[in-house]
Amino acid sequence: MTKIAIDAMGGDFGCEPIIQGVIQALKECEFHAYLVGDEKIMGPFIPTEFKEKITLIQADEIFEMKEGATDVLKKKDTSIFKAIDLVRDGICEAIVSAGHSGATMSLATLRIGRLKNVLRPAIATLMPNSKSGRTLVLDVGANVDCKSEHLFQFGVMGEAYAKSIMSIKSPRIGILSNGEEDSKGDEITKSAHKLLKNLPTFIGNCEGSEIFDGSVDVAICDGFVGNIVLKASEGVASAVTNLIKKEVKKSIVAILGVTLMKSVFKKVKKNIDYDEYGGAPLLGVKKCTIISHGKSSPKAIKNAIFQALKFSNSNIYENIENELGKFKNLQG
Amino acid sequence: MTKIAIDAMGGDFGCEPIIQGVIQALKECEFHAYLVGDEKIMGPFIPTEFKEKITLIQADEIFEMKEGATDVLKKKDTSIFKAIDLVRDGICEAIVSAGHSGATMSLATLRIGRLKNVLRPAIATLMPNSKSGRTLVLDVGANVDCKSEHLFQFGVMGEAYAKSIMSIKSPRIGILSNGEEDSKGDEITKSAHKLLKNLPTFIGNCEGSEIFDGSVDVAICDGFVGNIVLKASEGVASAVTNLIKKEVKKSIVAILGVTLMKSVFKKVKKNIDYDEYGGAPLLGVKKCTIISHGKSSPKAIKNAIFQALKFSNSNIYENIENELGKFKNLQG
Repeated sequence: MTKIAIDAMGGDFGCEPIIQGVIQALKECEFHAYLVGDEKIMGPFIPTEFKEKITLIQADEIFEMKEGATDVLKKKDTSIFKAIDLVRDGICEAIVSAGHSGATMSLATLRIGRLKNVLRPAIATLMPNSKSGRTLVLDVGANVDCKSEHLFQFGVMGEAYAKSIMSIKSPRIGILSNGEEDSKGDEITKSAHKLLKNLPTFIGNCEGSEIFDGSVDVAICDGFVGNIVLKASEGVASAVTNLIKKEVKKSIVAILGVTLMKSVFKKVKKNIDYDEYGGAPLLGVKKCTIISHGKSSPKAIKNAIFQALKFSNSNIYENIENELGKFKNLQG
Repeated sequence: MTKIAIDAMGGDFGCEPIIQGVIQALKECEFHAYLVGDEKIMGPFIPTEFKEKITLIQADEIFEMKEGATDVLKKKDTSIFKAIDLVRDGICEAIVSAGHSGATMSLATLRIGRLKNVLRPAIATLMPNSKSGRTLVLDVGANVDCKSEHLFQFGVMGEAYAKSIMSIKSPRIGILSNGEEDSKGDEITKSAHKLLKNLPTFIGNCEGSEIFDGSVDVAICDGFVGNIVLKASEGVASAVTNLIKKEVKKSIVAILGVTLMKSVFKKVKKNIDYDEYGGAPLLGVKKCTIISHGKSSPKAIKNAIFQALKFSNSNIYENIENELGKFKNLQG
């Protein structure tokens, strides 16, 4: 049975929503959860009937969101450190963390380690598109100041994720740029474009809008750009929602309209909702590491666990190592 | 009376929507329009009562969207070349172009010329925010591979626009980054951040979402990032709209709901609609240059003209030159 380590204390709202998410997942799937945190705090949230499927691991400290990621290596009693080490030591196959994302990334990279040939792990995230599907975007924040060979590797890792986890046979890989023509892009992007031409699945430059219209399956970018695009997209969606809410309040007729459209809004929300996938995989490390939002709901944690299960039972690791092995000469 | 040159032929849909926009603007405002293009084609679209306020200028060629911007200098008979030269020669005070944006930018920079101390002109664009206001973002595509001093200048020019055109006394200037903390950003952004601290209106890093929640008035970025963010934002808005439309079609109740919410959607659309401002000013050149979308509607062209009028009658040029003059030592 797959064993998943969960940092139960690192999120913004304490252990309650995280444990609730774990229990929801246990109701639907077979796995064993290792919850890391303060046993006295976590204990009361575990219903008796789930005690067999949950192991509590004591951690005395929490790594706070305001701390610098570089300090995490010194804090061996934090829940995130101990959760990572459960994977490092082979007790668990995957980790889900809603704690400090920089710390999770550093620990996963340094203590679990990178896959063979990987220069830099990247955070990948799924974004909704109007075809009711998902587009994978990477990197969304692990790496700034990338070189072209890093972007090339993100392409290879994104392709592996699309094939192994999203079950897309021939994913379309694009590189984000300021125009579709090959000649468009900053220097790094143009030189990464040349390297990416070695991937048969590479379809060239894509514009920001193509993430959301379903014309690519994987969009490659530097973590600086990816992070700005990710947050800008969330910002647009929430600005539109707020404007609608503000206007609706002014009119009784519109309030009735909203009531009639309830099922529509619910379906659209389900399509664009972060909770539906629940976490961003860190691609390029030896074991499955899912980084969830600090404000994750139980549903988000549940879906992050499902993602971890799918990931752990896939051949994505071999896929990444083999593919990168083929292109060793391109990676400086 | 302000004289405005309009490239009437360069847009994707020919001269008709452009001339309609000009006429709509003439109905609401005092100015004289110089329409540049094929007189035989434009002529039939001009109603007799507007003939006094419109001068037709013959241009035999159109600079096609598919051509490389660098070729435009050689094509002196194109409508965009002749329209720019009306400004260069002092006949008109401003130009509005829905033609090839790269060509417009090159011609404005090379034939009209940069303001004193400006290293690189930048395309600024207004984006909607949930406070029902507008956020200015620059650069959105004129410059890739910027240096920190370019980003600093974009800050100064954005500040001048916010003060002179948007009438914001103390605009809040932010620089787009992958986190709010000063330590976040790629190398160029971090070093631009240091330079921008010399502006009293600078409030530090801003995240992608802050463009849309109204917490900054001006967001600074490299043209590569800006272009991707601009298009991604348009992509999100249109994906959400498409998802709603798709779901509504499936239910009669929801169709009734949409009808009741018509006025809400109309107001929200007005808030986020490109047509409401109609064009992006090229900041840093000696005369007002407004770059409109190739697919501009008459309303977009009308609003682009209003923007040009406001711009031409403002003190933005002195503002930019004076401010940049103060910081000469920072600009390498």
